[in-house]
Amino acid sequence: KQPVKLLVLPGDGIGPEVMREVGRIMAWLEQKRGLRFDLTEDLVGGASLAEYGVPIRDEVIEKAWAADAVLFGSVGDPKWGHVGFDKRPEVAILKLRQELGLFANLRPAKVFDALVDSSTLKPDVVRGLDIMIVRETVGGIYFGDPRGIETLPDGSKRGINTEVYTTSEIQRVARVAFDLARKRDNRVCSVEKCNVMESGLLWKEVVTDVHAREFPDVELSHMLADNCAMQLVRNPRQFDVLVTGNLFGDILSDLASMLTGSLGMLPSATLGAEQADGRRPALYEPIHGSAPDIAGQGIANPIAQILSFAMLLRYSLNLQTEADMIEQAVSNVLASGLRTADIMAEGMARVGTSVMGEAIVREL
Amino acid sequence: KQPVKLLVLPGDGIGPEVMREVGRIMAWLEQKRGLRFDLTEDLVGGASLAEYGVPIRDEVIEKAWAADAVLFGSVGDPKWGHVGFDKRPEVAILKLRQELGLFANLRPAKVFDALVDSSTLKPDVVRGLDIMIVRETVGGIYFGDPRGIETLPDGSKRGINTEVYTTSEIQRVARVAFDLARKRDNRVCSVEKCNVMESGLLWKEVVTDVHAREFPDVELSHMLADNCAMQLVRNPRQFDVLVTGNLFGDILSDLASMLTGSLGMLPSATLGAEQADGRRPALYEPIHGSAPDIAGQGIANPIAQILSFAMLLRYSLNLQTEADMIEQAVSNVLASGLRTADIMAEGMARVGTSVMGEAIVREL
Ligand SMILES: CC(C)[C@H](C(=O)O)[C@@H](O)C(=O)O
Ligand SMILES: CC(C)[C@H](C(=O)O)[C@@H](O)C(=O)O
Repeated sequence: KQPVKLLVLPGDGIGPEVMREVGRIMAWLEQKRGLRFDLTEDLVGGASLAEYGVPIRDEVIEKAWAADAVLFGSVGDPKWGHVGFDKRPEVAILKLRQELGLFANLRPAKVFDALVDSSTLKPDVVRGLDIMIVRETVGGIYFGDPRGIETLPDGSKRGINTEVYTTSEIQRVARVAFDLARKRDNRVCSVEKCNVMESGLLWKEVVTDVHAREFPDVELSHMLADNCAMQLVRNPRQFDVLVTGNLFGDILSDLASMLTGSLGMLPSATLGAEQADGRRPALYEPIHGSAPDIAGQGIANPIAQILSFAMLLRYSLNLQTEADMIEQAVSNVLASGLRTADIMAEGMARVGTSVMGEAIVREL
Repeated sequence: KQPVKLLVLPGDGIGPEVMREVGRIMAWLEQKRGLRFDLTEDLVGGASLAEYGVPIRDEVIEKAWAADAVLFGSVGDPKWGHVGFDKRPEVAILKLRQELGLFANLRPAKVFDALVDSSTLKPDVVRGLDIMIVRETVGGIYFGDPRGIETLPDGSKRGINTEVYTTSEIQRVARVAFDLARKRDNRVCSVEKCNVMESGLLWKEVVTDVHAREFPDVELSHMLADNCAMQLVRNPRQFDVLVTGNLFGDILSDLASMLTGSLGMLPSATLGAEQADGRRPALYEPIHGSAPDIAGQGIANPIAQILSFAMLLRYSLNLQTEADMIEQAVSNVLASGLRTADIMAEGMARVGTSVMGEAIVREL
């Protein structure tokens, strides 16, 4: 068997220390499940700025193309708060998305039974919550032209951004959502603002069309983005898969994450298009940030990073069994009462990053 | 004293029946507080479509200019689900905003003590919540050009919308927010996506500048829209006044409303610029929709409409005492245990629209 080629980009803040715990899981998979990993590591974000003066080098993009998948930590460092617009650490992630064509961001928002009380929402509202938000990530207002700030004759300014979506951009992300729904509760809700935006009107039209032609067996509904924000608070369990554009997806997926009360638990995947050789670029990262305030103290929660790796096994390597095993191990360790600081609760045992990582491997 | 000239636009669904209860309050103000109201009523939304074939007539816009303020009900009727983009009932509200230059939408999200359990959030998280969201409403992506759907040579389509904000558009809405903050807890949080949108970068720059020059005594902070959605769920009481653009404001104000658990309670105001003659166009409306499913049954909650009228007294007529009295009366009636169906809870007395309206007048 060929080894799995992974590009590992720990990034800034707690990125490197939570990534270390994934190393333990990989070692276990090599020993017990006969897998082999061929790892390349590189710098992104503030770490890359410090070393190379740019948040990500073209060379890293090339390494990402050469790998079977990218495992990403997190970027962002207060040290770099005052660099220009195109040097901020976030550029690393935006550039990876765009250069690799990573158009479908999968953001599960799942409440673990053991953590149902961490939510600010009532337990009855969020118990068993299991939503998958599919967010388009290489189009929309993040990347449309014209954009910029122009100075008018009277010295005042105009800031401009353009939301653009084409039929094919909408089709491909809709297909990802419908495909996922078939493996879940078979329901997709498509979200836009078609009552005020023509790009939303086209979005709705194309999703409806893909549904009718290719996925008539999946249940499809439509919702305005403002209403969706309300429904996520009122009754989040009404949703199975949500599919939406880049900007709405950014806001709604973060909102949905917070319903679970524990960002330190939530992974994500961002998938590209299948290439001629059958490979599909993909990037996996926790949804939490680099948390510079607690970096280097050994107290960060490694679970989101570990579950991101489980998503990698599931979506890039089709190793469903191994992914299930890791998810189950995490669930069991939580049920046994271990907690990192961010999810600590009365009567539980507080542990650091590496004790949590070890416990998950032991459970495996 | 001159009578107060009001244009009353009840609209569709429950609009007319909740508006009727405001009539009682007006009668009370005329009898007991020496006010005089000169009312003109007209059709908007589905009601106007049925009668005139358009969601709002130019004549109605003229009447709005002639009035001291507009009291609006709600629009939207499933009957009109399939009319074209420029005939939908929502056009009534969009056109009123644009033609009257109603640029600052004030959306209070307040939790009444008696209703703290209606929220899906834990009582400890929302008790005493009192946020004011100031949303820009005549600029941004709702109105920017170019916009539309174009067909490409290969038959596929492109949907386009443009977000545009100018220095002066941002300045005037920022001033409204800072002014309001001075009468509240003196804190403003400005929300954008300056990490990916230049229009957000300009937004932040201009708000910072207005603050430094004109409102240095107010505390100003900045937050990204995705983080703001999270913070509203995690700890909503951290906010006093929020100020943001049209699209983010649409989503975040609806999200904030839902934190209170009772949309039937929440009013809004939309203010324009002061004119040469000292008058300022303004529109007041509940945030709930036309609720066609319960229209005509006499069970709708009239409180949001009544509180919208209280905002009218406060912001258009500077009648602080009368506005306070109405708000206090509502609070007392709730404390006494009366509830309409939408806010009904165990042990409370369920009443219809008019009994609730009467009770508030009696309390006054
Ligand atoms: C880092 C940033 C540019 C990014 C975004 O806004 O897309 C982040 O918020 C995310 O959701 O991945
Ligand atoms: C009616 C509709 C166009 C409107 C909007 O999106 O602005 C509504 O949602 C609102 O918030 O007032």
